[in-house]
Amino acid sequence: MAHITFTLQQLATHIQADFKGNPDYTVQGITTLSKATPDHVSFLSNAHRRQELKTTKAGIVILSRKHLPYCHSHCLVTSNPYLGFAKIAQLFSPNVPLEYGIHSTALIDKSAQIGAKVRIDPYVVIGPRSIIEEGAHIGTGSIIGSDAWVGRDSHFFPHVTLYDGVKIGQRVTVHTGTVIGSDGFGYAKEDTGNGFRWVKIPQQGSVYIGDDVEIGANTTIDCGTLEDTRIEEGVILDNQIQIAHNVTIGAHTALAGCSVVGGSTTIGKFCAIGGKTSIADHLVIADHAMIAGGSNIAHSIEKPGIYGGPFLAHTNWKRNTIAFQNLSKLLSRVRTIEKQLLGNRSPRVRLKV
Amino acid sequence: MAHITFTLQQLATHIQADFKGNPDYTVQGITTLSKATPDHVSFLSNAHRRQELKTTKAGIVILSRKHLPYCHSHCLVTSNPYLGFAKIAQLFSPNVPLEYGIHSTALIDKSAQIGAKVRIDPYVVIGPRSIIEEGAHIGTGSIIGSDAWVGRDSHFFPHVTLYDGVKIGQRVTVHTGTVIGSDGFGYAKEDTGNGFRWVKIPQQGSVYIGDDVEIGANTTIDCGTLEDTRIEEGVILDNQIQIAHNVTIGAHTALAGCSVVGGSTTIGKFCAIGGKTSIADHLVIADHAMIAGGSNIAHSIEKPGIYGGPFLAHTNWKRNTIAFQNLSKLLSRVRTIEKQLLGNRSPRVRLKV
Amino acid sequence: MAHITFTLQQLATHIQADFKGNPDYTVQGITTLSKATPDHVSFLSNAHRRQELKTTKAGIVILSRKHLPYCHSHCLVTSNPYLGFAKIAQLFSPNVPLEYGIHSTALIDKSAQIGAKVRIDPYVVIGPRSIIEEGAHIGTGSIIGSDAWVGRDSHFFPHVTLYDGVKIGQRVTVHTGTVIGSDGFGYAKEDTGNGFRWVKIPQQGSVYIGDDVEIGANTTIDCGTLEDTRIEEGVILDNQIQIAHNVTIGAHTALAGCSVVGGSTTIGKFCAIGGKTSIADHLVIADHAMIAGGSNIAHSIEKPGIYGGPFLAHTNWKRNTIAFQNLSKLLSRVRTIEKQLLGNRSPRVRLKV
Repeated sequence: MAHITFTLQQLATHIQADFKGNPDYTVQGITTLSKATPDHVSFLSNAHRRQELKTTKAGIVILSRKHLPYCHSHCLVTSNPYLGFAKIAQLFSPNVPLEYGIHSTALIDKSAQIGAKVRIDPYVVIGPRSIIEEGAHIGTGSIIGSDAWVGRDSHFFPHVTLYDGVKIGQRVTVHTGTVIGSDGFGYAKEDTGNGFRWVKIPQQGSVYIGDDVEIGANTTIDCGTLEDTRIEEGVILDNQIQIAHNVTIGAHTALAGCSVVGGSTTIGKFCAIGGKTSIADHLVIADHAMIAGGSNIAHSIEKPGIYGGPFLAHTNWKRNTIAFQNLSKLLSRVRTIEKQLLGNRSPRVRLKV
Repeated sequence: MAHITFTLQQLATHIQADFKGNPDYTVQGITTLSKATPDHVSFLSNAHRRQELKTTKAGIVILSRKHLPYCHSHCLVTSNPYLGFAKIAQLFSPNVPLEYGIHSTALIDKSAQIGAKVRIDPYVVIGPRSIIEEGAHIGTGSIIGSDAWVGRDSHFFPHVTLYDGVKIGQRVTVHTGTVIGSDGFGYAKEDTGNGFRWVKIPQQGSVYIGDDVEIGANTTIDCGTLEDTRIEEGVILDNQIQIAHNVTIGAHTALAGCSVVGGSTTIGKFCAIGGKTSIADHLVIADHAMIAGGSNIAHSIEKPGIYGGPFLAHTNWKRNTIAFQNLSKLLSRVRTIEKQLLGNRSPRVRLKV
Repeated sequence: MAHITFTLQQLATHIQADFKGNPDYTVQGITTLSKATPDHVSFLSNAHRRQELKTTKAGIVILSRKHLPYCHSHCLVTSNPYLGFAKIAQLFSPNVPLEYGIHSTALIDKSAQIGAKVRIDPYVVIGPRSIIEEGAHIGTGSIIGSDAWVGRDSHFFPHVTLYDGVKIGQRVTVHTGTVIGSDGFGYAKEDTGNGFRWVKIPQQGSVYIGDDVEIGANTTIDCGTLEDTRIEEGVILDNQIQIAHNVTIGAHTALAGCSVVGGSTTIGKFCAIGGKTSIADHLVIADHAMIAGGSNIAHSIEKPGIYGGPFLAHTNWKRNTIAFQNLSKLLSRVRTIEKQLLGNRSPRVRLKV
């Protein structure tokens, strides 16, 4: 990796932070408080780790004002140290300019339109009438169907597959193994006298992915039945997510790994959905909803707030979980009361356990 | 897309429906009630949407007899409008005849047998002694091991992988990224004095897929340990499903996205299993079982019915879910009773919360 | 398959078992009790199947001493019949010596180092400075980034992808569609006045996989943010598992299919984690923890034991599940008591259901 250095002053300017210490103090990397040396900038974003300020050898620490008194290093003071960390880490991991060119093993249909300065890696296949805009990078073995569109400066890691007609915006990143545009799971039952068979509903829509979306590895996004499945700008999707047909995900919403969104569900803007969450089909989730990981969401969510756990909104969920953990004791307790109250008479409601 | 038109009469004949209106009225596409124009046929399959009959501009609407009085368009009357929609949508999305041929970059072992009129796309690799029957289409970058069999008119989208020995029936569709025949997760523990190590059990079986099966994207189906894993005819599997070794799935059963079936479990015929359901290993699920999405099925199901939710059959599950949502209130209520009943005496069962 | 035969004596020696019967009795395969013929060795590892000893035609049966009186065949007596089965099944499925060679369509960067006697299949792509050690087998269409390392005798099935910098130990097996080293899901929120946007945190770490690990199909393992994600020696991972960034999984731990491990979680050694388990981020799971399939683990586990179910450690979980299944009845029961105790006075705590 190239040797990149920044001064305290430069870093402060870059993240619009105040600083304490020598403006010319220089660092050449970013890492955790525990691993940092005087050549590193580090960060404190979680108050639980404040005691690490005592022992860290970091040359510079990004932190919020309330932790400043505990900092013995040079300091960058900002209201959002985690964002400061993200931006400074980007400084130390600059985008390498794309080495453009089209590998000789790439098979590109004559009718496809390929922009300037694209990079198309080995064994890529691009179908008829597809458009790859300037600056795009299509990774090894990726397959792009016919009539697809990949916007400027988008980047596919290896083995991404776009079915026919999928449209991808600008500066979109897609990781390996992700499949966009596969058929939605739509079938009608036809009675056959002694049972039934499934009659496939042709999936005629496609998928639209907005600008600045990032999609993880081995995620699947199905095409729509009659209209397009839509992932709006700035959405981030983790690995192994399943987006069913006709879903819309609003701008800047995040879904963590292994979440599932059922068919025809609409998720609002600015939502944050924890890993392994399941959202049923035909729901509407309000803007700014936050859903705890592992939740099964079976009903629409009508207003912003924190939701989740297997059944419930977050506040009740915590108390109910504790109650659930003592449910068998509660049962014994009710029995005790019954006995005292009702003596030997059998209760009017009997509980079989 | 080609310009395809049908008259009301033709559509009625195709789906064996009655009709109301001008038999020569012509449409050229199918879409939702809200998007339809007089050139479209549309459908009403959900009574909740009946009010859309008032405002739709659809030329023809498929509906059931009870909704006929509300229909101001030409009408197709059938007991199963959703099935009618499926069949008419297929009319408007006819299968394009396969452009057959074998791409020059496909690598096919000399001992493989390739039927007439197959299509084998770029960068496909087919191993020794495998058989590809007439009319099959193997999508770009798909990999077929040795001794495998792909039946007539089956269609693999790009990047499908068959391990050695997998047998696929006729008219089977497999979507991108799906892996069939990977090793089952079978290991024995061997004590090592200070812990243990896992000793792999060779997975000697393979996978059999019956006719007319459709399998979604990024699904995995493991080979059997000693016998074959079996997916019977007419089964439909959605995306990101995991089928462990030695499973049998009966004919015409449907599994929605991200479901998991544990090893050696047998699922009956005509079951419908909702998305993200987990079925434990070594179970038997009866024919015609319906399981709600998100369920964890830990016990065998012995008779047809509706099952699911995290613990239970559907009827109790709904009431219990409501009770659970009020569990902490129930706890307070029991405390109130205790106090009245028992006064200051400590209850015989104490609840720590 | 070649014709391999073993005598009772040879098998007894191989698995260090006692035997009963003719030491020269010969078998040529291994299968289940119900399918076995006199030419087969079979095994009894589950007491529920003991009655099959009466009817099996197996020439030899592997079993524990307590079942010996019920065995009418030649017998191999061992304290761990399932391990005996694994080892004898391996005898009957010997590793075929690797047919080494590099396919002409494999694209290997000039600066990569390729060991002796490797096998590199068609359409493999290997990036700059990567190292493939002696005896490794890289399956068709697998893609290895730059600066990666694959240890001796490791085996990748087709379509495995390693991102840049991933290090794989010796004798590691990776199944199709698995992605190792994809970006962790790390973003900071940046306020934009009318909402926010996600600022990506560059994922600078990589992934380290120890010796003798086996990884199933379509699994994803993200690279670390600042340090490496680590899978220690002897770990076994099933299909469709998601390992987030900065996770460590201790030696000889097993995770069954579709499990998810959240970011920065550390799992101990010798754990066994059932399928579809979700472990939240930033947890520590003790060595020797066993977690039931389908669990959502939201808290660290501090000592060995059996855990799981949606909320709880196993013992309480069972009783509470039963209580939950009767929760609505419990509610009715509390109402009955209230009525008797409080008459028509409204209870001090009201339950809305």
